[in-house]
Amino acid sequence: MSVGLVEPQVARFDSPFTFANGAVLESHELVYETYGELNSAGDNAVLICHALSGSHHAAGFHSADDRRPGWWDLAIGPGKPIDTNRLFVVCSNNLGCCDGSSGPNTINPATNQPWGGQFPQPQVSDWVRSQKQLAEYLGISRWAAVMGGSLGGMQALRWAVDFPDWVEHCVALAAAPGLTAQNIAFNEIARHAILSDPDWSEGDYLAQGKLPTRGVALARMVGHLTYMSADGMSDRFGRELREGSFAPGDNNEWVFQVESYLRHQGARFSTQFDANTYVLMTRALDLFDLASDHEGDLISALSQAQASFLVASFSSDWRFPPQRSVEIRDALMAAGKSVTYANIETDNGHDGFLLPNATYEALLSQWMHRVGPS
Amino acid sequence: MSVGLVEPQVARFDSPFTFANGAVLESHELVYETYGELNSAGDNAVLICHALSGSHHAAGFHSADDRRPGWWDLAIGPGKPIDTNRLFVVCSNNLGCCDGSSGPNTINPATNQPWGGQFPQPQVSDWVRSQKQLAEYLGISRWAAVMGGSLGGMQALRWAVDFPDWVEHCVALAAAPGLTAQNIAFNEIARHAILSDPDWSEGDYLAQGKLPTRGVALARMVGHLTYMSADGMSDRFGRELREGSFAPGDNNEWVFQVESYLRHQGARFSTQFDANTYVLMTRALDLFDLASDHEGDLISALSQAQASFLVASFSSDWRFPPQRSVEIRDALMAAGKSVTYANIETDNGHDGFLLPNATYEALLSQWMHRVGPS
Repeated sequence: MSVGLVEPQVARFDSPFTFANGAVLESHELVYETYGELNSAGDNAVLICHALSGSHHAAGFHSADDRRPGWWDLAIGPGKPIDTNRLFVVCSNNLGCCDGSSGPNTINPATNQPWGGQFPQPQVSDWVRSQKQLAEYLGISRWAAVMGGSLGGMQALRWAVDFPDWVEHCVALAAAPGLTAQNIAFNEIARHAILSDPDWSEGDYLAQGKLPTRGVALARMVGHLTYMSADGMSDRFGRELREGSFAPGDNNEWVFQVESYLRHQGARFSTQFDANTYVLMTRALDLFDLASDHEGDLISALSQAQASFLVASFSSDWRFPPQRSVEIRDALMAAGKSVTYANIETDNGHDGFLLPNATYEALLSQWMHRVGPS
Repeated sequence: MSVGLVEPQVARFDSPFTFANGAVLESHELVYETYGELNSAGDNAVLICHALSGSHHAAGFHSADDRRPGWWDLAIGPGKPIDTNRLFVVCSNNLGCCDGSSGPNTINPATNQPWGGQFPQPQVSDWVRSQKQLAEYLGISRWAAVMGGSLGGMQALRWAVDFPDWVEHCVALAAAPGLTAQNIAFNEIARHAILSDPDWSEGDYLAQGKLPTRGVALARMVGHLTYMSADGMSDRFGRELREGSFAPGDNNEWVFQVESYLRHQGARFSTQFDANTYVLMTRALDLFDLASDHEGDLISALSQAQASFLVASFSSDWRFPPQRSVEIRDALMAAGKSVTYANIETDNGHDGFLLPNATYEALLSQWMHRVGPS
C-alpha cells in the first residue's frame, strides 16, 4: 500500500513573486512531489500542505534503502485514506523553507551567496498564492481537496477562503483560526534560542561557514515537547532513569529517559533543519489569523469559502487544543457551510495527525470517499 | 497590614552537613527572615518554604524605598491569613540557592573561589534536614505549620513525611507528589539552555568573570510561560502587537506584546538569579518523589505523617495541574489523615498561589485559624 519510490521535482517560475509584506523575488523554484495520476477531467487533484518542519516528501521512499517514508505515508497511498489509485496527490515544499524550494539556504542570484537572513518573510497567504502558480504549472484548475495538519491545516483553510472556487473540499486537522498568546510565546522562545546562539551570526551563518546548532536543538526540544501530551509522555517515559540511580549516596549524573529522548531529537534536528527557515516559519504561524482581513470576524472570513470541510482535533492536543477546532466548526456552521467535525480520542497530543490511530484513519478514509470523481 | 521593614539574618553551622548524595559541607550558612514573635510555649512557629526562584524574603520590605515586598506578602502580615500578630513566621533561603545561603555563588573555603558547579546537588530532603537544624538554632522544637507553594509545597510534604512529630499542620499549594515526564522535560530544556550558553564555562563563570545571561534568560522565559495559563495570557496579551503592524505591505519587525513581556522577564531574571542555582533547583525538583522510599506507594509514604493537611490547586495550573493535588488528597484520605482540599477557580495558572484571589485568600485565612495556640 506504499506509493513506493518517488522523486522530487522542481518547478521554476521566472516572473516576479510579490510577498504580502511587499518584498519581491524576481524568480523562484518550488520543489514538489506527486503521487498517482491526474485524470483527463482534471478533477482528482489533492493538495497536501505540510506543517512547520515538514516538506514536500509526504509519502513513499527516496531510495531502496530509505528507512523512513514521507511524513504522511500513513494517509497517502494505494488503498489508503488519500487513495492514489483514484487521486492525484501534490505536495510542495513551502516557499522560504529549506528542503529545496527557494529559501534562506538557497542562493540569492543578486549576491551569489545564500539568502540567509535576507530571505523575505513569507505569510500563509503567500504560500497559497505560490501553490496556485504551481497548480497552474501542473495543469490543475481546481483542487478536489486541500488538506493539512497544524500549520498545514491553517494553510488549507487559507486556501478555501482566499480562492473559494479552487477548493472543493478542505481538511483542517489539529489547526486553529489563529495563534493565541501562548502559541506565540512558544514560538518566540524557539526563535530566541536560535537568535541567542553566537553561531547565528545575524542569520548569515551559511556564508560564514557556521551552524547555530545549539539554538536550533533547543528550539526543537521546546517544539517537540509541545507536540506530545503530558499523559503520553508519562506512559512512554515515566520517571525512568537512563543514567544514574535513585539509591541513597548516588552522586552520579542523573539522566532521565525523557531528557535523553529530547536531547537526541534536538541534536538530530539541529543539523537537518535550517535555522532561518525555523525563524520564518514560526513567524508565519504567529502572523496567521484567518479573520484578520474581516475585522476579527471568523464567520465573515469563512463565509467566503465554497468548500465542504472536515475539521478534526485530537483530544490531548494542548498546542492547538480541540476548542480551537470547535471555533472553526462553529464559525463554519454559522456561515452555513458543510462541515464534519470529529475530536479523536488519543494520548498522542498535537502529533496525533501524524500517528497511527484506528479511529482517525477510519474517519479520514470514510470522509475521503466524497473527494474526487465517484 | 504589612510586617514593615525586615532584615535578613544569618545562621552559621560549623558541623558537617551530609547531603543525600553523600557530599559533605564542613560548614554552611543559612539566610532567613522572621516575622512576628516566638511565644514562650514555642507553639506558634510557622515555616514557609519557597519555590524555585523564591528566597527567604517572603514578606515586608528591605528598605523604605523598596518598591516590591517579599514574595508572599499577600499571605503574611498582621491580620493577614498567616497572621503575624499570633504566629512566628520563619522563611529560609534553601541550601544551594543564591540569595545568601551557602550555594554556588558563595565562597568554597577549600579553594577561596566561588563554588560554581562544584556545589553539591541538594535534594528536597536535604533542605528539610537543614531547616530542622535552623529550627533547633532558633529554639523551635515543633512547627505549628509548614507551608509552601509549588516546590515549597513539595518541601512541606517532605517535612510532614520525614519528621512527623515536628509538623502539626501542613499546607501544600499547587504541588505534586512527584514530577511527571513533562515536568522533567521543561526543566531539562531550561537547563539545556543554560548549559548551551558559551558563557556557562562548565559552571565556572563567576571565577572567569562571565555570566551565562542568554541561557538563564531563555530558561526563565520557558519557566515563566509554564506558570501562566493559556486563557490568562490571551486575556492579558491577546494578539496585540507592540511593534510593527498587520497592514498589507508592512515589512517591519513584528513584536507581539507577549514576546516583549517574556523577553523583559528573561532579561531581568538573567542578571539577578544564579545559573548554577537554577540548574541545582530544577534537578532537585526532578528528583523529588514523595513515594520513592516506599516503592512508589504514596499512601504508604503519607501514612508516616501526623499533620493535618490543607491541599489546594489552581484550576488553570497546567504545570502542576489539579489532578496532582487530587492524588495527594486521595492518598491522604486513604492513609486516614485529616485533609482539606480546594481547587481554586482562577486564570492565574501555576502562579495562582502567589496572586490575589478572594476565594484563595479567604480559604487560607479560614484554615489558618486552626494553626497555633487558640
